[in-house]
Amino acid sequence: MTAFVDDAHRETLTKALAAIADRAYWSAYPESPSPRVYGEDAASAGLAAYEAQLGSRFELDQPGTVGWVGEERSPYGPALGVTYPEADLDVLLGAAQDAMPAWRDAGPEVRAAVCVEIVNRINARSFELANAVMHTSGQAFVMAFQAGGPHAQDRALEAIAVAYAEQTRMPATARWEKPQGKRPPLVMEKTFTVVPRGIGLVIGCNTFPTWNSYPGLFASLACGNAVAVKPHPAAILPLAITVSIARDVLAEAGFSRDLVSLVAENPGGTVAATLAVRPEVRIVDFTGSTAFGEWLEANARQAAVYTEKAGVNMVLLDSTDDYAGMLANLAFSLCLYSGQMCTTPQDLLIPADGIGASDGRRTVDQFAADLGAAVDKLLGPDAQAVELLGAIVNDGVLSRVDGAGSLGPVVVPSRTLTHPTYPDARVRTPAVVRVSAGDGDVWGSECFGPVSFLVTTDSAEDSADVLRRTVTARGALTAAVYSTDEKVVAAARSAAIDSGVALSENLAGGVYVNQTAAYSDLHASGANPAANAAYTDAHFIAGRFRVIQTRRHTA
Amino acid sequence: MTAFVDDAHRETLTKALAAIADRAYWSAYPESPSPRVYGEDAASAGLAAYEAQLGSRFELDQPGTVGWVGEERSPYGPALGVTYPEADLDVLLGAAQDAMPAWRDAGPEVRAAVCVEIVNRINARSFELANAVMHTSGQAFVMAFQAGGPHAQDRALEAIAVAYAEQTRMPATARWEKPQGKRPPLVMEKTFTVVPRGIGLVIGCNTFPTWNSYPGLFASLACGNAVAVKPHPAAILPLAITVSIARDVLAEAGFSRDLVSLVAENPGGTVAATLAVRPEVRIVDFTGSTAFGEWLEANARQAAVYTEKAGVNMVLLDSTDDYAGMLANLAFSLCLYSGQMCTTPQDLLIPADGIGASDGRRTVDQFAADLGAAVDKLLGPDAQAVELLGAIVNDGVLSRVDGAGSLGPVVVPSRTLTHPTYPDARVRTPAVVRVSAGDGDVWGSECFGPVSFLVTTDSAEDSADVLRRTVTARGALTAAVYSTDEKVVAAARSAAIDSGVALSENLAGGVYVNQTAAYSDLHASGANPAANAAYTDAHFIAGRFRVIQTRRHTA
Repeated sequence: MTAFVDDAHRETLTKALAAIADRAYWSAYPESPSPRVYGEDAASAGLAAYEAQLGSRFELDQPGTVGWVGEERSPYGPALGVTYPEADLDVLLGAAQDAMPAWRDAGPEVRAAVCVEIVNRINARSFELANAVMHTSGQAFVMAFQAGGPHAQDRALEAIAVAYAEQTRMPATARWEKPQGKRPPLVMEKTFTVVPRGIGLVIGCNTFPTWNSYPGLFASLACGNAVAVKPHPAAILPLAITVSIARDVLAEAGFSRDLVSLVAENPGGTVAATLAVRPEVRIVDFTGSTAFGEWLEANARQAAVYTEKAGVNMVLLDSTDDYAGMLANLAFSLCLYSGQMCTTPQDLLIPADGIGASDGRRTVDQFAADLGAAVDKLLGPDAQAVELLGAIVNDGVLSRVDGAGSLGPVVVPSRTLTHPTYPDARVRTPAVVRVSAGDGDVWGSECFGPVSFLVTTDSAEDSADVLRRTVTARGALTAAVYSTDEKVVAAARSAAIDSGVALSENLAGGVYVNQTAAYSDLHASGANPAANAAYTDAHFIAGRFRVIQTRRHTA
Repeated sequence: MTAFVDDAHRETLTKALAAIADRAYWSAYPESPSPRVYGEDAASAGLAAYEAQLGSRFELDQPGTVGWVGEERSPYGPALGVTYPEADLDVLLGAAQDAMPAWRDAGPEVRAAVCVEIVNRINARSFELANAVMHTSGQAFVMAFQAGGPHAQDRALEAIAVAYAEQTRMPATARWEKPQGKRPPLVMEKTFTVVPRGIGLVIGCNTFPTWNSYPGLFASLACGNAVAVKPHPAAILPLAITVSIARDVLAEAGFSRDLVSLVAENPGGTVAATLAVRPEVRIVDFTGSTAFGEWLEANARQAAVYTEKAGVNMVLLDSTDDYAGMLANLAFSLCLYSGQMCTTPQDLLIPADGIGASDGRRTVDQFAADLGAAVDKLLGPDAQAVELLGAIVNDGVLSRVDGAGSLGPVVVPSRTLTHPTYPDARVRTPAVVRVSAGDGDVWGSECFGPVSFLVTTDSAEDSADVLRRTVTARGALTAAVYSTDEKVVAAARSAAIDSGVALSENLAGGVYVNQTAAYSDLHASGANPAANAAYTDAHFIAGRFRVIQTRRHTA
């Protein structure tokens, strides 16, 4: 029994389980990077720790290290110069398999405690991770801290808690007594043992290296599996730090470090595809392109495959009693991280006769102008704007936003900003292009990055139909509706439920359609083509372990 | 709200959930066909109902009926002469899809109540079903009553209860309140709606048309899906009766009958493969051959696919303090339904120096002779023996048992019996063939039917290794160990846990390795190649529904 099985770890787990059960607000890890929360020296120490890693080897003491790889370059300009172990997969996977029986035999409670300790240690290094996430994803610092740090940590803890709950649905032992009329009853004692599936492969993405990787990583690990973490070649460092912490905690707890390992590669590598079809790999978690997600689903058939792919997120605009609040809320979602989120609204569906506000109707063009003004107001001066926008993550996104004019009339033009600290960073404000519902070839597939479409429809009812059809066919991570008419909200709900996407209704304050809260909000649904699973419901966990039973007669 | 949402249905569900949680003994449906339990006239009325169906059309009032099919012939001899609707799949699936929204909107509690009522009505027709199961599977009457009736009904209720539990893990509504320092908190109300995946396809098998179909059928239905039931062409009637009852109850409850439909076909048909890849079909449950199970897993990629395929069930023989009890127990498992169960032991692993009993060691040959004697003693006179053996279900099984001598030295010969009532029935006692561990090409793959192998190994430890390797590679539904040495039992447990198969230890009384008890024992594990899921854990349910969320601000 490890030292981490104590009241503190148990209380964290208990609180998480309670929050998950009632879906009320809770967080284990403060989201504020304030010195009052994390300490006066935390920010500078985190930065120093990050900078100390630049230009050097990231030592992990992994077996089967046959070389060093890594070519990360910050979207803010500088090359990181960090290199990581290149793995001999046979050795690495062999070590992972050897490590599993002891981890399996430790049982769900010990595993949960060790996993909570890993996340606690990750939390203590949130500032270091914030810098690593910032300089791999291009997120601005505060967002990198929050989304890459505490928010990701809360999603990790959520996965650990749901994994614990699911693994303990059956009792470890049971007594079964069947009456036999006048004869003595048949009496048996039974055992139920949770066993892992095998090695879990987590394939990270460039934009949210920790947030999108932690649920799968911790869900698999908590269920007794070993985990091989394959970061995106452009966003290795945050996951290398994560893996390093996990290996240390596992060793402290008396288990093999090799339960969690890093498989890094340079851009253009194909190790994810190689690993995904290895017979030892029985679970795959993936966030990224639809093409590779579908390849994994088709080819990694020896594994349970959880994928988050592309989607077409929609906002149904009908009417509002808080026009300014709605615009500010939408502007934030379009601007945050330059719209480089899988949850950013892409299509704003608006009736051709405009949108109702409490002080009168706005035409489509008026709405577009007002939205552009709201974006400008939100962003403010360039030095402030970059702290919301961050940097463009790669050339593909850049070419999409810079080429937005080829897609239709631009009603909110993208502006090019210069980052005061990082002049090489590519910074863009979001573009909005006006199209009509008939232009489905333009707005009907994902256009990742700061390009959205203002799509005119016949009516709010038509918008609901467009939403239903599009999400059913193309998928979506998010949907939203603005209407003061409960009939329209109901139509949007019906369309969302039919097509399988979560719906945010009339957001005009401090909650945004592109953000979900751990323990309460599901991220994705698994019910439309954008993802086949959700953070974190029982389905996300159930395929990661099995229960093996024994039975024998007893007195 | 349907009339079935009442205290009686709620109590049935509550008791099932309690039994599932503590895995103690419970049953909702009495397994005894005694007149004292089911009524003096139940047996004759059930037989009359069965006989009334022979030679006629089985009316189901299904949309899209374009013809009539059915060529069932009883393994006991007579052709049934029943024909069933042949479906236009477009019409049938269209009706199923149209029926789903109202069923979805009814919610988990109403669906559970309606499903419980369906099973209650099935239970009331257990004698009719027993005759139908007997004359399609070849099971003897009492087994057909129990396994095809109450035991299958208990597995159905188990699936309904686990489905209800899984669907209600999240609250229907939640209030979320996030503190904002000195500002007012962010407050939201959220809804969580269970939505079905689509149409479930249940592909039945010949030998257990109800028992192996009910878990998938009721799990899918209880989760809001419509279900198309595709029986084995040789065992349609039991599922046609089931579908007929389900349609009536659904209509009574105010839902569309077309939530449950029958897709029958003649031998050689391929409608299962056609249906399995239809885009409307999002769930597939299959029991049958490894070849078709693997085809489904590879091709029905739009669906969650639950398969039970072939396996190699093993018994590890080391020592016993109840030699006679062990022999009688093993003999029962080999004889029951002529070993035509997916759970029948196939390989009896015995050290080359024999097995220990309390009054001395038995050589392999002695054990074989004693096992043969135990079989003969158990079976008794032919007229009694047929009530345990039933009839050989098809020519494939018959040729395997009649050709057992080609596989090695026969140490327990199969005998051919004549059924006193049904002279055309093919009745065989089990054959046991002696081989050694090196003869893996003989004993290492499933030989379905009354042929088992007595496999000599170097030692009990060697037997455990053989079990671990074989089950890992080939799969198994069951495993058993006989040993008075806890070290050997522990080695068998370790091998079972490593290879992912349930283990029965030292069964020498009224519990048999080939039988599992609903609510307590898992059937299959999903952890080895014989099956990718288990009756009934959360994993068996979790893929059958999704949760769609909404959120809005509230005061």
